Amino acid sequence: MPVRSDEGMFLLNDPPKKLLHEKYQFDLTDAWLERAMKANVRFNSGGSGGFVSADGLIVTNHHIAADALQKLSKPGLDLYHDGFFAKSRADELKCPDLELNVLQSIEDVTDRVNKAVDGQLDPARAFLARRAVMGDIEKESLAKTGFRSDMVTLYQGGAYHLYRYKKYTDVRLVFAPEYNVAGFGGDVDNFEYPRHGLDVAFFRAYENDRPAKPAHFFKWAEVGPAENDLVFVTGHPGTTNRLETLAKLKHRRDFTLPYTLYRLRTLEAALTQYGNGGPEEFRQAATDLHRVANARKAFGGQLQGLLDPKIVAEKDRQERELQGSTPQVVFPLSPRQFHPWRTIEEVQVKYRAFEREHALLETGHGFFSELFTVARHCVRMADELPKKSADRLREYRDSNLESLKFQLYSPAPLYPDLERAKLQTSLTFLAENLGGEHPLTVLVLAGKNSAARAEELIAGTKLFAVEERKKLVDGGKAAVDASTDAMIVLAKAVDAEARKLRKRFEEEVEEPERQAYAEIAKVRFQSLGKSVPPDATFTLRLAFGTVKGYEVGGEKLPFHTTFGGAFKRAEAMKNREPFDLPTRWLDGKAKLDLDTPFNFVSTADTIGGNSGSPVLNRAGELVGINFDRNRHGLVRNFVYTDVQARHVAVHGRAVVEALRKLYGAEALVTELIGKE
Amino acid sequence: MPVRSDEGMFLLNDPPKKLLHEKYQFDLTDAWLERAMKANVRFNSGGSGGFVSADGLIVTNHHIAADALQKLSKPGLDLYHDGFFAKSRADELKCPDLELNVLQSIEDVTDRVNKAVDGQLDPARAFLARRAVMGDIEKESLAKTGFRSDMVTLYQGGAYHLYRYKKYTDVRLVFAPEYNVAGFGGDVDNFEYPRHGLDVAFFRAYENDRPAKPAHFFKWAEVGPAENDLVFVTGHPGTTNRLETLAKLKHRRDFTLPYTLYRLRTLEAALTQYGNGGPEEFRQAATDLHRVANARKAFGGQLQGLLDPKIVAEKDRQERELQGSTPQVVFPLSPRQFHPWRTIEEVQVKYRAFEREHALLETGHGFFSELFTVARHCVRMADELPKKSADRLREYRDSNLESLKFQLYSPAPLYPDLERAKLQTSLTFLAENLGGEHPLTVLVLAGKNSAARAEELIAGTKLFAVEERKKLVDGGKAAVDASTDAMIVLAKAVDAEARKLRKRFEEEVEEPERQAYAEIAKVRFQSLGKSVPPDATFTLRLAFGTVKGYEVGGEKLPFHTTFGGAFKRAEAMKNREPFDLPTRWLDGKAKLDLDTPFNFVSTADTIGGNSGSPVLNRAGELVGINFDRNRHGLVRNFVYTDVQARHVAVHGRAVVEALRKLYGAEALVTELIGKE
Repeated sequence: MPVRSDEGMFLLNDPPKKLLHEKYQFDLTDAWLERAMKANVRFNSGGSGGFVSADGLIVTNHHIAADALQKLSKPGLDLYHDGFFAKSRADELKCPDLELNVLQSIEDVTDRVNKAVDGQLDPARAFLARRAVMGDIEKESLAKTGFRSDMVTLYQGGAYHLYRYKKYTDVRLVFAPEYNVAGFGGDVDNFEYPRHGLDVAFFRAYENDRPAKPAHFFKWAEVGPAENDLVFVTGHPGTTNRLETLAKLKHRRDFTLPYTLYRLRTLEAALTQYGNGGPEEFRQAATDLHRVANARKAFGGQLQGLLDPKIVAEKDRQERELQGSTPQVVFPLSPRQFHPWRTIEEVQVKYRAFEREHALLETGHGFFSELFTVARHCVRMADELPKKSADRLREYRDSNLESLKFQLYSPAPLYPDLERAKLQTSLTFLAENLGGEHPLTVLVLAGKNSAARAEELIAGTKLFAVEERKKLVDGGKAAVDASTDAMIVLAKAVDAEARKLRKRFEEEVEEPERQAYAEIAKVRFQSLGKSVPPDATFTLRLAFGTVKGYEVGGEKLPFHTTFGGAFKRAEAMKNREPFDLPTRWLDGKAKLDLDTPFNFVSTADTIGGNSGSPVLNRAGELVGINFDRNRHGLVRNFVYTDVQARHVAVHGRAVVEALRKLYGAEALVTELIGKE
Repeated sequence: MPVRSDEGMFLLNDPPKKLLHEKYQFDLTDAWLERAMKANVRFNSGGSGGFVSADGLIVTNHHIAADALQKLSKPGLDLYHDGFFAKSRADELKCPDLELNVLQSIEDVTDRVNKAVDGQLDPARAFLARRAVMGDIEKESLAKTGFRSDMVTLYQGGAYHLYRYKKYTDVRLVFAPEYNVAGFGGDVDNFEYPRHGLDVAFFRAYENDRPAKPAHFFKWAEVGPAENDLVFVTGHPGTTNRLETLAKLKHRRDFTLPYTLYRLRTLEAALTQYGNGGPEEFRQAATDLHRVANARKAFGGQLQGLLDPKIVAEKDRQERELQGSTPQVVFPLSPRQFHPWRTIEEVQVKYRAFEREHALLETGHGFFSELFTVARHCVRMADELPKKSADRLREYRDSNLESLKFQLYSPAPLYPDLERAKLQTSLTFLAENLGGEHPLTVLVLAGKNSAARAEELIAGTKLFAVEERKKLVDGGKAAVDASTDAMIVLAKAVDAEARKLRKRFEEEVEEPERQAYAEIAKVRFQSLGKSVPPDATFTLRLAFGTVKGYEVGGEKLPFHTTFGGAFKRAEAMKNREPFDLPTRWLDGKAKLDLDTPFNFVSTADTIGGNSGSPVLNRAGELVGINFDRNRHGLVRNFVYTDVQARHVAVHGRAVVEALRKLYGAEALVTELIGKE
């Protein structure tokens, strides 16, 4: 029998115990798993992390901390670029709107969901019934346990699990290095290897104004991984598409990805220009720009993957094999005698007709402004909150309301000039996509061009002020109806159309796809069991792999880089941006052990969302912090290979060496490794 | 009677004598006009300039010289960024492929063209007949006069003029300042004012290895313009769309411009990334990047213009007025009883169906690589040259062949890594636009994704070497057929499809539009005479205007800036790129008269292509060099206003002051102003 590859982002309630035993002679214990679950942290802003001390200290990536760093900054204080170090606990900075989730339990509720929907022929009714039962399950769980309770759809509709989280909303910044060493190499080295980045940051969770005492934390390993060591990555991979049908992938290749790249490059060009406007503009736009550039590279890699005939042929082969695996079963299985693969193909044809409108108006790509997001929430809460929780739009259900308000009332600063530039860009993008005379363009632009319209909207809104937002939410429907705030007026004006598009999406795309994928999942389970884990869903998963280098064009790349390598690269690039190491590093070079391992790679299966994931050894100790994949790993959305594809992690020893020698952070080091 | 605005890019053979006399009491003499024509220079790489000495010295913009500066550079020698100054004539650097054209005469051949096409009902036959007669006219003129002879289509088909040019192909670089002062403010200040750029460069034309002795040159004025002075701009505006019908403009707004912006942002993102790869990559990509960023801003401004309901309403009003001006005439006028406005509207509907395919495959947007351009010429010359000149594709006619070969055999360096990056980007863009299974995508990618395909094409071509190109052209059809060069094979593979798209464009778009516009032109001439000059066609035009500042948001902007203002702006931007003045300027500040006027603005009517145009005073002396419009002028493609829209010019005195005090270029100053 061939040894199975290291593919797999496994569910914590269906861990690959047998596989690990057979392939690596490793026995995954329940205790090991419980720590992996409860010491793990999900950043709601989009990433992973882990507790690393009994006092609630949390490690993640600098680029996951970026959102908080930006929100804690202001003109003249640039924590994102300049870094931060709290000399004492009293100096730790409370983040304005950072919510962390720690998974407590998982419950399989597939049967209850399917039973509630069963017999609903009409997709519209089926969608509502499904939404209602999912809402009920969440609400009951919240009432019973007090935990944030989220329904998770697995296998694109093949299973439904309930995830319960402990929430932390008092999270404080402890340490972040300078951007120039955290993101060394910038966009050039992003998704590349060899790599040299100190992409880490530390936060501390608080409860009742005191450091939280997590039930579990990861011990910081004294030595790092050696080549060929087994390692684990536990974190929250965002999205993969490996179980999607070929028709869906082709739709992505030919419609969704080109649109997405068009949008991202538009935003990137606009943010670059804004940032070039001056030092303060540069500061304001930096995190948005890095997010967009990162996404552009990731989605560009996805497109390359789907343009590769070899990958398409392999997906085609897999699909035929699955279809053929139980030929006598496929159609009888389906209660309504439908061919699920064909259904999904037909859905894409329908989707094409309104995908861009839906994305622009309902997803909000036409309104790239925090203020519009705020306005929409105010408008929709007025309509939704009076309804029964289970009947509301998903984001307004009781179980989510606290988290939503935490974001909505965030005191994080917004910058009128930046908001205006972003809004103008996205309004232009809307007009480009729909045409100047499309009713939605006419509705949104309201008799102006996009530049004048953005100007008018930003000048005419008071939603910069949190108290204005509260007034509207507290005032409910009457307050929203009476409001003449320009952004509220816009959100009201487009709401009927946006809801119509959402409903169309739910009924013509989401629900039919779910039902079809549920059927496909049955076929899959019957032929392969649950050995293939579901696609990533920004929920906790366990991956494993081997630490090892790889070859590119005949050149063997080592499994880790060193501090010395970073200085060499900076020199080769004449210290030109984005290779200009911080002064602290240039001046402190002599203090460092240049042989210190900096970044390392393994074959473990990761994807965006895994950023900040603890990398663990067999003992469950932290040996690194995952922060990226190499470019060969960009096709992981669709296929896993371990020939060249690797995830990239910051080595645990690099963190300790830098904290000690360059940042004078002895107390932090002591907290991590328990000694000076 | 209201005073007419300063709108107008006038034909040199139909100059606004009466208007200038009435409005400015200026008598435009034939001598003045002859100098304006024969001292003017067209840069075939896309710009304008003028002779400024009896020894063939030519002034233009640094950004028009950019192409030559880049081609004269190599790893370790960066004339584009670092500048150049020839201490003696022997040090002047011969440009590898720069051709300059100087207009000698214009002949109206409208009747001959129309007569040849008259009675051709079928657009395909009409197109061929028109192409043939235009080819004959050019060929006859070339044979008779020896001058480069180009047919120019005016009023979108309302008139045909023959332009005869004296050519210069031995052009040498004399002086260029550093990019950082020529393009001070970069993309941020581009299309903005107040402005501070020394956007000038000097070349010298040679004949028989000796400095050319032009029949006319512009005297460098001793003093610059005062506020409210009348000035003239003579140069080669590229394209305007003021006489296009509303249906055509809406097509631009909803189809052509969104596509164009999508393409430009894609190229911009890719070139930015390539340039960030290291100092040498930065050098290689710089001129491409600046060209693309400039175009992105210009087309973005056009889109804003067409999204402005006020502008659309004004175009609508003008169109109705014109249609109503001679209601009894419009339809009888047309020999075939067609409604020309409706025809143009119908043409756009047809055009939509294949516009992107045509742009990608025939215009070449899918193959953004010099090497593909070379390959296509080799392939097409093998097919076209054996035909009669008048029957060839336009670019291969005898009258153009010398210029084409001059470009094709250019020894200018090409960089494999840059070519690969550009090609990959454009192949991806092609796949994004057409979809992964479109026959053209399949044909072009040939079983690979775009990254692997670009790699294969660049590795498999020898067209970097000029001798390979010559071998193929000299070997004709047999050599091309036998070639296994990867790029030649690609050019051959797509040629049938590309020609099919071209033919479709000619027959379904170009010819019907020409015929319809010819009818509209008749209506226009009948109601307005020829007082409205034709849209810009990258041929010599005369514009005039008043030097004056303007107001923005209540702030009065002065009609000129100063050297002192440049230093202030650099300081305010912390000397951060693109506001980092060259060391020579920072160190030499004390030597400069900081009150020296740097850039100035006037209301004269300009557009892209006018870059480098001499700005003249009443005496016909050069007082400045046009280099840009402000952002209010970005809608000039469609409408002219003089409320805020201005062109921006380098002040003549700034050039002299900088040459003298910072560059030690006394000899050059003497040549310009005739004294020390």
